Amino acid sequence: MVKRYLDLTPLANIPGVLASSFALHPATVRVPLPEAVDLVTATPIFARFSQPEVHLAAMDGIAVRAAETIGADEQHPLTLPHAVRVNTGNVLPEGYDAVIMIEEVWQDGERYKIRRPVSPWQHVRPVGEDIGVTEMVVPSRHRIRAHEIGALAAFGIRDVEVLTVRVGIVPTGSELVPFGQDPGPGQVVESNSLMAAAFVEAQGARCTRYPRVPDDPSLIREALVRAVRENDLAIVSAGSSAGTRDYTASVIAEVGEVLFHGVAMKPGKPVILGRVQGKPVIGLPGYPLSALTVLREIAAPLLGLWGLPLPEEECLEARVTRSIASEPGITEFVLSAVARVGDRWVAEPLSRGAGVQMAAVRANAFLRIDPAAEGVEAGSPVIARLMVPRAEAEQALLLTGSHDPALDHLADLVRPSVDLHAAPAGSLAGLLALGRGECHAAPMHLLGPDGTYNTWYLDRYLPGTDVDLVCVAGREQGVVSRDGLDLADIPSHRFVNRQKGSGTRMLLDHLLAEKGISPASLPGYDRELTTHLAVALAVKSGEADCGICVYSAAKALGLAFVPVGQERYELAVRREHMADARVRALVGAIRSPAFRDRLAAMGGYDTALTGVQRGSP
Amino acid sequence: MVKRYLDLTPLANIPGVLASSFALHPATVRVPLPEAVDLVTATPIFARFSQPEVHLAAMDGIAVRAAETIGADEQHPLTLPHAVRVNTGNVLPEGYDAVIMIEEVWQDGERYKIRRPVSPWQHVRPVGEDIGVTEMVVPSRHRIRAHEIGALAAFGIRDVEVLTVRVGIVPTGSELVPFGQDPGPGQVVESNSLMAAAFVEAQGARCTRYPRVPDDPSLIREALVRAVRENDLAIVSAGSSAGTRDYTASVIAEVGEVLFHGVAMKPGKPVILGRVQGKPVIGLPGYPLSALTVLREIAAPLLGLWGLPLPEEECLEARVTRSIASEPGITEFVLSAVARVGDRWVAEPLSRGAGVQMAAVRANAFLRIDPAAEGVEAGSPVIARLMVPRAEAEQALLLTGSHDPALDHLADLVRPSVDLHAAPAGSLAGLLALGRGECHAAPMHLLGPDGTYNTWYLDRYLPGTDVDLVCVAGREQGVVSRDGLDLADIPSHRFVNRQKGSGTRMLLDHLLAEKGISPASLPGYDRELTTHLAVALAVKSGEADCGICVYSAAKALGLAFVPVGQERYELAVRREHMADARVRALVGAIRSPAFRDRLAAMGGYDTALTGVQRGSP
Repeated sequence: MVKRYLDLTPLANIPGVLASSFALHPATVRVPLPEAVDLVTATPIFARFSQPEVHLAAMDGIAVRAAETIGADEQHPLTLPHAVRVNTGNVLPEGYDAVIMIEEVWQDGERYKIRRPVSPWQHVRPVGEDIGVTEMVVPSRHRIRAHEIGALAAFGIRDVEVLTVRVGIVPTGSELVPFGQDPGPGQVVESNSLMAAAFVEAQGARCTRYPRVPDDPSLIREALVRAVRENDLAIVSAGSSAGTRDYTASVIAEVGEVLFHGVAMKPGKPVILGRVQGKPVIGLPGYPLSALTVLREIAAPLLGLWGLPLPEEECLEARVTRSIASEPGITEFVLSAVARVGDRWVAEPLSRGAGVQMAAVRANAFLRIDPAAEGVEAGSPVIARLMVPRAEAEQALLLTGSHDPALDHLADLVRPSVDLHAAPAGSLAGLLALGRGECHAAPMHLLGPDGTYNTWYLDRYLPGTDVDLVCVAGREQGVVSRDGLDLADIPSHRFVNRQKGSGTRMLLDHLLAEKGISPASLPGYDRELTTHLAVALAVKSGEADCGICVYSAAKALGLAFVPVGQERYELAVRREHMADARVRALVGAIRSPAFRDRLAAMGGYDTALTGVQRGSP
Repeated sequence: MVKRYLDLTPLANIPGVLASSFALHPATVRVPLPEAVDLVTATPIFARFSQPEVHLAAMDGIAVRAAETIGADEQHPLTLPHAVRVNTGNVLPEGYDAVIMIEEVWQDGERYKIRRPVSPWQHVRPVGEDIGVTEMVVPSRHRIRAHEIGALAAFGIRDVEVLTVRVGIVPTGSELVPFGQDPGPGQVVESNSLMAAAFVEAQGARCTRYPRVPDDPSLIREALVRAVRENDLAIVSAGSSAGTRDYTASVIAEVGEVLFHGVAMKPGKPVILGRVQGKPVIGLPGYPLSALTVLREIAAPLLGLWGLPLPEEECLEARVTRSIASEPGITEFVLSAVARVGDRWVAEPLSRGAGVQMAAVRANAFLRIDPAAEGVEAGSPVIARLMVPRAEAEQALLLTGSHDPALDHLADLVRPSVDLHAAPAGSLAGLLALGRGECHAAPMHLLGPDGTYNTWYLDRYLPGTDVDLVCVAGREQGVVSRDGLDLADIPSHRFVNRQKGSGTRMLLDHLLAEKGISPASLPGYDRELTTHLAVALAVKSGEADCGICVYSAAKALGLAFVPVGQERYELAVRREHMADARVRALVGAIRSPAFRDRLAAMGGYDTALTGVQRGSP
């Protein structure tokens, strides 16, 4: 056994550790008012002058002395010899105390007539109506809203003292290339510091990204000391794990102290919190989703203690579509796609790989699994924390089932009114999810024993449920390879398969059975991938020699493709959901000329039936 | 009768007019990725390379060939001669297909031993696990979230084509001084264009503020033509009303056409929508809250049609605390302070003066009164649209009753966990609001006929209700004047009063009765203002010679102050609310040394009883 994490700190202890370990003196910076939107005031702001500073006309009309209007009535219009024409905002002349709207005045040459008397101060904006000099406009720790810029400017404010936290980020890692360069083999773009900077800046911090440092303890130490000196908070990106080149913890211990190494949460477990010169240092794990979790669960509360709180996520209760295993004692965060299906919310957990950044791109919410729980059962209620405004979550349309690259294009075409989430679960799993009311539509391509596509399976798995099928396209499946292999070549080559229940795997089994080939004889039959492009990539990279996928995936990677047959790729939708605005928008997108153009550009699709709708048997 | 508005366009017609009047071609701009947070994609974004591009180790440990691990068990540890030490993220050596975590490996000199076999692809990040080259990362019309910057950078994205709208704003008005200068008499800071710029930029537009133009039609025309030429949308600030110097409508008509002048909404009625060179032109009313309403109800939906939607406000149902009159046929917007009192939300309408910008600063929500309704009855349910995140609305603490400048300081001291809203309704109205459960606390100073402060009134108006009184301070009231008038001088000078039901007015009445002075003999007894500072300002400006207010208000404006007595300024709180976290924070702030310091700095307060709590009789 080599290096190990130190004992894990429970996530619940973090706020206490943060609050007690640092004397956080808020940093402030003075910014010109127009740049202060969304920033947080460091001090209360007081009006520098009254608004208005003198009595003003509040209407277009005439300024009068109210006492001189007494006696006017419908029968006895009164001429006002001293009336003065004023526009809204004009200074009320000395001695005048009311304004009569121009609509209520009859002009007679140079003179004005009225038909009823007015009270003093009618239609006058008195001194200080809006605010009086010295009054507090906004308190300290107030996040300035866009519309408040006008009021502050009107009250004489030119610049504002706002809270900030200076954050210095040091990216480490010999395998990194800087943003803007393309990585060579084995290299990656240094992207975590960009994410961290965007994250903390959105909260109001000011960020310095230092040049990346190779995996060399003395260089890391030098960079860390500088970042601590020049900032309130230093973040060292990567090197926090237990690899042979993870120096962050030892470097922090050299120049300061490690408060904890390892938090009982996933992702984000290998995080380090240190203290150097009394200032906090965060050792950010290298996996992007670990880093994101640490930013949200540790960096954000720390910035909150400095006066830059992140608004709490909005929550809603949803039914989780799949069971989630979790380790007791560990708080697990699960990125999810939530959508309102019928009258309830469902949460579809996304990939939990800490390196799968697309999960955070696709997610509109996340779940927090309690450390006391051992996971969550499929179908149980969970609290989903929204990562988008609630109105956007309401637009989510959840497709669970077979995957096709064309779904990405539909996701694009239904924007901005619909936010399409496609979960690549395979046709059969999608069908079952549709049966449980856990998705809006199930993309499927299942060849029944009777030779029909999809209807046999609907009949068998959702008997008695009214389901409509909307055809996306006829599409060609085939053998993908680097050198033009066909079905007969498969048994003698390394193969990659699709997951159980996927239409493509069932198609393969059907073809193998036809040819009398035993699945067990295929090397790689048990290697399961979940999308067409993943299969093509495995072939492209040399991991395997062949697989089954749609033409567009093979074409995208420039691979050979030998067709094995055309199938009917359809969306199954419960009839009761056909009227849902999101589903209607999706069907509209499928039927749009733009979608046909996209299918033609991708290749391998037959659009003769695209958009055709049929009822379940 | 002089100029009048054209027929008012119903607000409900606006979306149709906007959608049908302009061919809105989205403008796009390419921005470096790190600057793209919160901007909206103009096109889908596709991965430039796979992530990872080659198989990587997913753990710190050793890379192995899974086939060579077969046979290892607890009794028979297996030595792996070909194992290679790898760290997370390292490229998997050619021919290797699994990684064993370092924690599960026993090192024996240079060789590694294991005690159980592993499956192929264990702890390996296969090519394209995160994304495959050519796959869509995000669709078009997607608002980029801070955390997505990392994923996009990792997938090879360097810059992003985003939607924008170029907005040109032309401020007009001879009375304006530019931001940064102090206004002279009758001048105002040109602040509406700043507010408009902040507003549309928060939505993703790019704004040019042109130099202000005096009220000269030919100069306005010139500026408008230029703004239209250089932008997608032109906004002319002010000059949209019916005054003698409101030229916006006629200028638009000269160089294009006026689509409507006047919308059936308040504030914001005198808005103009025009079309010049096929582009929209908005004539923004001069009153700040009218301008804000037009920005929200007309400019924002227009930007939404261009692809920059503003998220819809979150709504909640609240009970309105006061009746709101509204004109049939007109959609009225009422800025409000909403707070959760006990288990329900209440909405306190704020000043409806279109020039009172502080209402928008103080508001955390607004109401929209249906044009079919003739106002809303006090106590009826209304839909409040939040102007802050819901979590912030949950922090709102509503004080209704007597006003004192010290409340501003309490609002500052309870930040950031509490958002204090003080409605200056007067002591008696506050007490009644407390009785109806429409506020958390009622600041009051009511001298009973028995000579006690507050308790007599509680007993009379809230019998049987358990109420606690928390003393803010003893405070001095007195006669404010420019030249040292005292109580006996009031009848022979111009006076300004406070509103009915305010403790200060009741104190005056008590003092007048004691001296046998008839209120009717006071010139200005009927002139009602609602705060101490407003009274002092009226005196300062010469509108009146004297009034009654607290010492701190007189001192703030450098006026003379002759004390008439000290009173007990207390907060009445229902006992059931004393445990509320917001109320506790407020009481804590009252008892803090910082608050005593602030009271001392303001002057005129006796802190002997500050923080003392007593029960109702």
